[in-house]
Amino acid sequence: MSFLELTKKRYSVRKYKDEPVEREKLLQVLEAARYAPSACNYQPWHFIVVTDEELKNRIAETYPRDWFREAPVVIVACGDHSSSWKRGDGKDHCDVDLAIAIEHMALAAADLGLGTCWVCAFDARRCHEILELPDNLEVVALLPLGYPAEEGIPEKKRKGLDEIVTWK
Amino acid sequence: MSFLELTKKRYSVRKYKDEPVEREKLLQVLEAARYAPSACNYQPWHFIVVTDEELKNRIAETYPRDWFREAPVVIVACGDHSSSWKRGDGKDHCDVDLAIAIEHMALAAADLGLGTCWVCAFDARRCHEILELPDNLEVVALLPLGYPAEEGIPEKKRKGLDEIVTWK
Repeated sequence: MSFLELTKKRYSVRKYKDEPVEREKLLQVLEAARYAPSACNYQPWHFIVVTDEELKNRIAETYPRDWFREAPVVIVACGDHSSSWKRGDGKDHCDVDLAIAIEHMALAAADLGLGTCWVCAFDARRCHEILELPDNLEVVALLPLGYPAEEGIPEKKRKGLDEIVTWK
Repeated sequence: MSFLELTKKRYSVRKYKDEPVEREKLLQVLEAARYAPSACNYQPWHFIVVTDEELKNRIAETYPRDWFREAPVVIVACGDHSSSWKRGDGKDHCDVDLAIAIEHMALAAADLGLGTCWVCAFDARRCHEILELPDNLEVVALLPLGYPAEEGIPEKKRKGLDEIVTWK
C-alpha cells in the first residue's frame, strides 16, 4: 500500500468492536509516534495509554459520547511546554510536534487494520485535573483506538487541489 | 513497506540533487496533504509551491542556508486562522491541522524517494511580507523538497518508549 493509499484508508472511526488491541500492535503504534520528527528533536510528548475501564469512563466525562467510552484503548496525548521548542519570536511549537506524533499513531493504526479518531473537542482542563497532570503538560488530543466495528471506508470530502494550492 | 518502516525512512534532508521534481510526484505529495484530517474537516490550509528561482531566493532570506536555497522546490505551508476550528475555550487548532498536512507531505515524499525537511526556524513575519499574504494566513513551516543528494538514512536519536509512555 502506498502512503497516499494509506491516507485514504485512515478515517475517523466512531464505532469499535468489543475486542482488545494486541499489545504488539499497540507497541507498533507507539513506535510510530516515537519516530515522529519534532522541532530540534526535543520530542516534547508524553502518551498515557488508558485501558482501565474506570479511568476511561472518567476521561469520557470530558467528551461524553458512548462510542468514545466503548473504545478499548484511549491514548491521551500530552504536550510538554517545558521542553517544547520556541522560535525567536516566541511561537511555541508544542502543538505542531504533538500533531505530527498523534497523526503518526493514527496512520500506523490504519496500516495495522485498527481505527482511531482525533478527539479535540473535549474539556482539556477537566481532563488535566482527572489525570492529575503537572502544569507543564497540556492534553492536546485524545485518540481512541480499537478495531472498527464496521467495514468499508467512507468517502472523504475534501477541497480540490486548485483551491488549496498556488503554484509560483 | 509498512508505515512504521516509512517513519524510519523519512529524515531531514539537507542536501538535494540539482534535479527537478516531476510534476506527477509533486501532485501526489500535495494529494497526501489534501487527504489529511483536520478539526471539523475545515481544512484551514493553503500551500504555495515555489519553483521560481528568484522567489525561492527571496524566501531563503528568511532562512539563509545554502542547502535550503538549492532545493528545487519549496512548499510554503500556510494556516488560515479565519477558517481554522477553535475549541470552546478559545484554543485555535490551526497549528495542529497544518502540522498533520505538512507531515503527510513529508511522508508521501519519502515514500516516493524524495526528501524534505521541516523548516520552522525561519523569519515568519518577513516571509509573510515577501509573499504579500493576507492577515488571516500564517506561514507555519517551509518544506524544501527534492531528491536527496546522499544515499543512506541517518540513525534516528529518540527517547525510549519507557520515557514517553505511561500505561494506565
